[in-house]
Amino acid sequence: MKYLESFQLGDVHIFSGKPMSTAEIMAFAREWDPQRLHLDVDYATSLHGSLIASGFQTMLHVFEPVMREFMAGVENLGGLGFDNLRWPRPVRPDEALEVKITVTGVKPSRSKPDRGVLSYSLEARNPAGEIVLTLETAAMLRRKGADGE
Amino acid sequence: MKYLESFQLGDVHIFSGKPMSTAEIMAFAREWDPQRLHLDVDYATSLHGSLIASGFQTMLHVFEPVMREFMAGVENLGGLGFDNLRWPRPVRPDEALEVKITVTGVKPSRSKPDRGVLSYSLEARNPAGEIVLTLETAAMLRRKGADGE
Repeated sequence: MKYLESFQLGDVHIFSGKPMSTAEIMAFAREWDPQRLHLDVDYATSLHGSLIASGFQTMLHVFEPVMREFMAGVENLGGLGFDNLRWPRPVRPDEALEVKITVTGVKPSRSKPDRGVLSYSLEARNPAGEIVLTLETAAMLRRKGADGE
Repeated sequence: MKYLESFQLGDVHIFSGKPMSTAEIMAFAREWDPQRLHLDVDYATSLHGSLIASGFQTMLHVFEPVMREFMAGVENLGGLGFDNLRWPRPVRPDEALEVKITVTGVKPSRSKPDRGVLSYSLEARNPAGEIVLTLETAAMLRRKGADGE
């Protein structure tokens, strides 16, 4: 298991987000976000040059390797939230995204000695190196020894 | 079609988010967010009293009616981002969520007369009336007449 103490301020990790095909972009949009930008190729192309993925789907694809690798086996009590989430550029079909996270905080709680807050920033880039998603996030983790470990 | 001018500062809309079953919570977690809080009933129950849903899945369920109803037919150029997203309480299996959005901004762009920014805040509550998700968001919309309409 990993605890708050398993993370170091300034640590950087790089992950690979699975590309979304045109069919996957449309299927996701029909279920969760049925806007023309994600379903109507002509409309989306006139505005952005191609169909573009829902920002929700981009978020899932960007976080999937983070949750599966970086947060694997972590004694996580729960996510706290996101700040400053931005989608500065659209994500297009079949673009693999490079995901970089940087640990920005490892802070034991003052009031509850068994836990503390892990914070990190995230930046995702398309194959051209352009930033497509940024955010800051935090989660409440157990501290080592809190449980007698 | 709806344009920036279709929205009024202070407008409030209420939606209903579809509950997530235990099976749906686990299936989503396996694909996108394989943490024990969403997959291991004993672990999650010891910390939170029950299995709890991934915050990503909660977000999808909360936004689904918003995108399908409130944003239907809107000349949306694209979402800009989220601010102050918080998950103050866990969401448990089979909880229907009440979603309230309030329009907080309707601002024509100064530099581009064909568009402007729609902002709204969102608050989701569980059946006990407790807030489970809050955030602020904004999207870039076309203005009426920008296209000769």
